[in-house]
Amino acid sequence: MDATHISLAHGNGGRFMRELIDDCFLRHLGAGLDTDLDAAPIDLPTGQVVVTTDGFVVQPIEFPGGDIGSLAVHGTVNDLAVAGAEPRALTVNVILEEGVEVALVERVAASLGVAAAACGVPVVAGDTKVVGRGEGGGIFLATTGVGVRDPALRLAMGEIEVGDRLIVSGTVGDHGTAVMLAREQFGLRGDLTSDSAPLLAACRALRALPGLRFMRDPTRGGLATVCHDIVRATGFGVRLDGPAIPVRDPVASVCEMLGYDPYYLACEGRVVAVVAEATADAALTALHGAGCVDAAVIGTVVDAPARLVLTTELGGERFLEELEDDPLPRIC
Amino acid sequence: MDATHISLAHGNGGRFMRELIDDCFLRHLGAGLDTDLDAAPIDLPTGQVVVTTDGFVVQPIEFPGGDIGSLAVHGTVNDLAVAGAEPRALTVNVILEEGVEVALVERVAASLGVAAAACGVPVVAGDTKVVGRGEGGGIFLATTGVGVRDPALRLAMGEIEVGDRLIVSGTVGDHGTAVMLAREQFGLRGDLTSDSAPLLAACRALRALPGLRFMRDPTRGGLATVCHDIVRATGFGVRLDGPAIPVRDPVASVCEMLGYDPYYLACEGRVVAVVAEATADAALTALHGAGCVDAAVIGTVVDAPARLVLTTELGGERFLEELEDDPLPRIC
Repeated sequence: MDATHISLAHGNGGRFMRELIDDCFLRHLGAGLDTDLDAAPIDLPTGQVVVTTDGFVVQPIEFPGGDIGSLAVHGTVNDLAVAGAEPRALTVNVILEEGVEVALVERVAASLGVAAAACGVPVVAGDTKVVGRGEGGGIFLATTGVGVRDPALRLAMGEIEVGDRLIVSGTVGDHGTAVMLAREQFGLRGDLTSDSAPLLAACRALRALPGLRFMRDPTRGGLATVCHDIVRATGFGVRLDGPAIPVRDPVASVCEMLGYDPYYLACEGRVVAVVAEATADAALTALHGAGCVDAAVIGTVVDAPARLVLTTELGGERFLEELEDDPLPRIC
Repeated sequence: MDATHISLAHGNGGRFMRELIDDCFLRHLGAGLDTDLDAAPIDLPTGQVVVTTDGFVVQPIEFPGGDIGSLAVHGTVNDLAVAGAEPRALTVNVILEEGVEVALVERVAASLGVAAAACGVPVVAGDTKVVGRGEGGGIFLATTGVGVRDPALRLAMGEIEVGDRLIVSGTVGDHGTAVMLAREQFGLRGDLTSDSAPLLAACRALRALPGLRFMRDPTRGGLATVCHDIVRATGFGVRLDGPAIPVRDPVASVCEMLGYDPYYLACEGRVVAVVAEATADAALTALHGAGCVDAAVIGTVVDAPARLVLTTELGGERFLEELEDDPLPRIC
């Protein structure tokens, strides 16, 4: 296509939109995409079909370790993975702001295509809209994933029992810190990168274990918010072992300097799993085998109080409250 | 919830977001929605599974005859319907701009819920993001629909043959004109309303006919763009019979006054069907029986030239060119 910047005509259904779709999106996402169809057929193997959906408004659009395109694929695939499913199809919605560079749209489309291919999941349907200058945020994406899982798999917060262990597959807070620094508003530079990555291998390894109760990826609101969800749904307490929670040194430093708590910052390539006490060692071994070198047992489900408690290095305790103010808007 | 306006904290994964989802979205969409799940199971009957996705950025958010919520449901359900499928599940992404009135979000959620229920399709998964003031357009939606169709059904532009007839299920240009007037920038007021509506009954009636080749809903770019898609895909020409194309008098008046062509304006509750010549009468009868009182045979697929030609009331001819400039941004 000839244009260097997105104009309103790229969203009108006519020639310019067709060129944008053909030259930019189809070229990078094209293997499974037929733009002549109103609805695309997908072949699903036997099993329980599950769907998930996610919007992406991350700012900046490109950040160390990824961009909105790879993030959208990972976020959607990971929601299927933690539900115990294998991804089979993705749909992608793009909302572009007038004036955005076509080269940026192309890089995002390419990144999305590479990430989807790496996860083995085709993009089967898409839509593009263009809004006026000042009515959008550059590029927004909204993706939906369709997956299939073993109907016998029972993964739910209702399966969680007192004495169960919490395991995290890697360091927490990397994505949140990396995006925050990429905004440069703090005048800081670090060698921090987002942990944005697919969780398919980790979740496959975990779901083979009989004592697995529940998995969730700690995105917006971070590890603490996953724990609060568990507390609210089960009525049990969660006790986190502070010194056991893996946090990269630069993440800890940046958080200390800026007054953030890494337990509330988004991860985009980590899974929190709740497993039976007897399964904890096997789960850790399984995660290590799936390449999650920093995986650790980080906490226990307790009978009471129905709150989230963090034990600290010095043997103290503090309650972690539910998130109220937004520490970092447009983090994903 | 206590808030009257959306704040960034409504998007952060914490308490405010949970309240927004529980008190606003769950209340109106809740029947099939379990917000504790990362991915929702859906039960699909035997058949070919199809998926479609659409973004919605219409401005204004509420317009005569609908709003962005009902429009999102109709747009998505209609893409499944014209593909010959029955809708089985919807997912909904919401991107809210800081400062939007909570009451407006509630009205849109309610409208979305009513429209989905009327189409018999549950909302099974959703996601909400909040962007800062001036980074969004009030409310954007992105919906994905999953449907199932008879695998024996062959509907495609590749099935179209010379001599086939084009049929439209009702008047064209209503949605585009109604939204344009609702913006008030022209200082005009009309009794025009959008045609936004589900096409399920019309498409069910048509797909029972053996001579049905192809169906499409003429949204962005309107009737003329559907015809151009057919010309491009088949290499045949399309000859539209101008006087036969149903256009409401006020739509024709407004278009004449403002210099728009109703054939290029969006419809959101019409289907264009291509049928074998021998099936045209039966298709018209089927559409009338499905409540499409203005349905009409409006054109013919011809061998050459591979262009879109309109015959006028006085017996003249003119070519309808492919859409280039955007006549009406943010129309859907």
